[in-house]
Amino acid sequence: MNEITSQIEYLFNPRSVAVIGASDSFGKWGFNIINRILLQAGDINIYPINPKASEIRGIKAYSTILDVPGQIDLAIIVIPPPLVIPAMKDCAKKGVKVALVITAGFREVGQQGIELEAEMLRIAKKGGIRVVGPNCMGHFNVYSELYTTGSTKIKPGPISLISQSGNFGGYIVDRGTDKGVGFSKFVSSGNEADLTIEDFIEYLGEDEQTKIICAYIEGLKNGRRFFELARKITMKKPIIVMKGGRTQEGAQAAMSHTGSLSGSDDIHDAAFRQAGIIRVNKVDELLDIASALIRQSLPRGRGIGIITGGGGFGVVAADACRRMGLEIPPLSEETINRLNRWMPPRWPHANPVDLAGDPMGSVPCIGTLLKSPEIDGILAVSCLGFIPRRSKEMPEHLQKEFAKHQEEMAEGELAAMDGLIERVEKHDKPLIIAAVGYSKAMAELARHNIYTYRSPEDGARVMAFLVDYAEYLSKG
Amino acid sequence: MNEITSQIEYLFNPRSVAVIGASDSFGKWGFNIINRILLQAGDINIYPINPKASEIRGIKAYSTILDVPGQIDLAIIVIPPPLVIPAMKDCAKKGVKVALVITAGFREVGQQGIELEAEMLRIAKKGGIRVVGPNCMGHFNVYSELYTTGSTKIKPGPISLISQSGNFGGYIVDRGTDKGVGFSKFVSSGNEADLTIEDFIEYLGEDEQTKIICAYIEGLKNGRRFFELARKITMKKPIIVMKGGRTQEGAQAAMSHTGSLSGSDDIHDAAFRQAGIIRVNKVDELLDIASALIRQSLPRGRGIGIITGGGGFGVVAADACRRMGLEIPPLSEETINRLNRWMPPRWPHANPVDLAGDPMGSVPCIGTLLKSPEIDGILAVSCLGFIPRRSKEMPEHLQKEFAKHQEEMAEGELAAMDGLIERVEKHDKPLIIAAVGYSKAMAELARHNIYTYRSPEDGARVMAFLVDYAEYLSKG
Repeated sequence: MNEITSQIEYLFNPRSVAVIGASDSFGKWGFNIINRILLQAGDINIYPINPKASEIRGIKAYSTILDVPGQIDLAIIVIPPPLVIPAMKDCAKKGVKVALVITAGFREVGQQGIELEAEMLRIAKKGGIRVVGPNCMGHFNVYSELYTTGSTKIKPGPISLISQSGNFGGYIVDRGTDKGVGFSKFVSSGNEADLTIEDFIEYLGEDEQTKIICAYIEGLKNGRRFFELARKITMKKPIIVMKGGRTQEGAQAAMSHTGSLSGSDDIHDAAFRQAGIIRVNKVDELLDIASALIRQSLPRGRGIGIITGGGGFGVVAADACRRMGLEIPPLSEETINRLNRWMPPRWPHANPVDLAGDPMGSVPCIGTLLKSPEIDGILAVSCLGFIPRRSKEMPEHLQKEFAKHQEEMAEGELAAMDGLIERVEKHDKPLIIAAVGYSKAMAELARHNIYTYRSPEDGARVMAFLVDYAEYLSKG
Repeated sequence: MNEITSQIEYLFNPRSVAVIGASDSFGKWGFNIINRILLQAGDINIYPINPKASEIRGIKAYSTILDVPGQIDLAIIVIPPPLVIPAMKDCAKKGVKVALVITAGFREVGQQGIELEAEMLRIAKKGGIRVVGPNCMGHFNVYSELYTTGSTKIKPGPISLISQSGNFGGYIVDRGTDKGVGFSKFVSSGNEADLTIEDFIEYLGEDEQTKIICAYIEGLKNGRRFFELARKITMKKPIIVMKGGRTQEGAQAAMSHTGSLSGSDDIHDAAFRQAGIIRVNKVDELLDIASALIRQSLPRGRGIGIITGGGGFGVVAADACRRMGLEIPPLSEETINRLNRWMPPRWPHANPVDLAGDPMGSVPCIGTLLKSPEIDGILAVSCLGFIPRRSKEMPEHLQKEFAKHQEEMAEGELAAMDGLIERVEKHDKPLIIAAVGYSKAMAELARHNIYTYRSPEDGARVMAFLVDYAEYLSKG
């Protein structure tokens, strides 16, 4: 680790944390944070700082950080803006390594705030303290169970996220959690008075527990450094970026939000591409491609084999693939002969492969396409997870018959999943599954980090991102 | 009603239905259909036709349709292709009005099928029978509880759907049901040997129970008639179209699917626009705009007021609006003064309106923008429905405190909803709510047909569709 990454290590893996502004009053930030931190089961020492309390949430509180015995790696500051200055002076005296300043009311509120922020930073620099924020919404490290955000007990996983908007970052984490993906680290960088998104990218690039880096960016303080770092990092792990402030109106809103200069969108677009960064347009896209990168192989080319449970889906999926620059190669005679074994005679003998109403053909047909050399990736649309729904209004004798039928189908599909997962592991090709139902079999796939996507278009977009990233890497 | 619409009336509101191929064998189409039809509580007479059974599902079966006493309005045909010819001859003798042919294996399978389809059609025409299909997946009329599709007991509502793909149509209905929207009528038009999408559009244009027409189209048999009808209908009710076969590969797949000629996408695009048709790119867009049209007023202009629960959401929503051609006008002094009453001092005093962390300001601020003359529509992003989540790992004494806090927030928001709904009713402007949590208050909004949208981008797109349609209508 170099100087900057070893300093940031104190943010994510501190041995001791002081919460300046810890509170026993329900609903306050200082209350929430201390409670979340106390949930961690590790061996981080926690020190509530509050001049008006001798004990907070059952543990000894201290008047100032100077009263704490021993070293403090991380100080979390949640007190009103004018009090931040004396608190930071104390932190400097104490030899704190990193101060996470959640408090708002600095540069983003105008001249007075600008001066306050500069004064705070001057004190921190003199004391050798690195500052996160101010005006941020905390961070977390799932692996050390340390949470200073609104979230807690996130599923562990390989995705880390840096966000210049705290709320928006929290929203991304919540939506990812709903989707079932796991996270490693998160930081809301706020006003970036000291530590910037460039610093965090550098840290996450080296972090072993981070395999995929996501970022919500409104403006870059040092674009050149960002893109130089990104160019190196994307060769070993993907970086996915959503950029806010693309339009004049969005940029104005970004200015009053985090004081960021958004810069020209065209220039960003070219720079992102040259650095191998995957640029997304919305949160769903960010989580879709991030979840695919957890487990899916990168395709060797643009030739996509489409398998669908109905002709309309084939039409829509083919349109979506083509519009995103993917190719739909004709099937070789060998592939067609192999597919014939699983298909009713009237299947269209072409790509898209329409299962023509027999969902039980899905898994062997996917297996066949995984083996076919003309196919670089498989998009399976609406051909898995469809256990027919039972209607409550059905007569009772039918309910029973239907329930049995449902169960048989669900069991049959679940039994086929082992084979599918094994085949995906054997063949080095991505399998993107879209527009499916919610069966046990689909949950089983997610447990193996094979996620499913909402629509044929969403599936095709994920595939296009994978293809683009693979092409970037192959150009070396 | 003219000739064609009064004929189609027998499809959606028959007094008597024969199911040719009704079956007692679980899993067969003839079994599913007879069971679904038997669920209807209306006064439609149902006649199972099966030469091998004297009774099906407890009601008398007949060997042929000719054995049925009295008139048959609608015959549903689910028997193997060669048997369709003699069955259609019987239907002609019986004076059946409409035959719905679910059976596949006609034009879509090649020369032999083409001949079979022509022969069937010749018999039907001679007998004065209108044919739906063949190779289709049924229809429904929620208001007469008649279902010949895979769905049953759909929520009643104003949306009707015509689909040239049965599977894809069913998928749209299922996704709409998941979203909570209600339907009126559905028909899968299949090979369109006789009745075409143009005929159904004409019928739905006149149908009182249909307020919004949706269609999935792969190819038009009579484009001129379609666009002439659409131009008239869109002046009184919206038509939303998703077009498959936009690319060469999609068009090829459409050809082998329903034998449709997809035509040039550019020409379609211009024709759709000139006829006031709302063209969508994916199912989510189709359901998003359809659900908005149920209840939302059309905006008088492009000026959007954005309200957000956090700065990042404002940036992203502003970008999305601008990229979709919407405007974000500056707020008048009067509007700013009014908003000041609900806002903490440090709010940005601009559009997007950032609630700066106080979600309780949402409803009064939305109310203020509804009243502001510079605002034509409101996009409320991530500022409603966020009742904090409880973590199971919380210590027990906290759980209680937290549960109380949750309940208070939920009750507060629910109480505010009455006021919000009343304001929306009073002011003739659309309110599009996006990226919200799932609280009781949001369910209450949905009960009033105010639906919510996934992301800021999805919300902005819905608003753009509303603006475009309103502009089309105003040019009259």
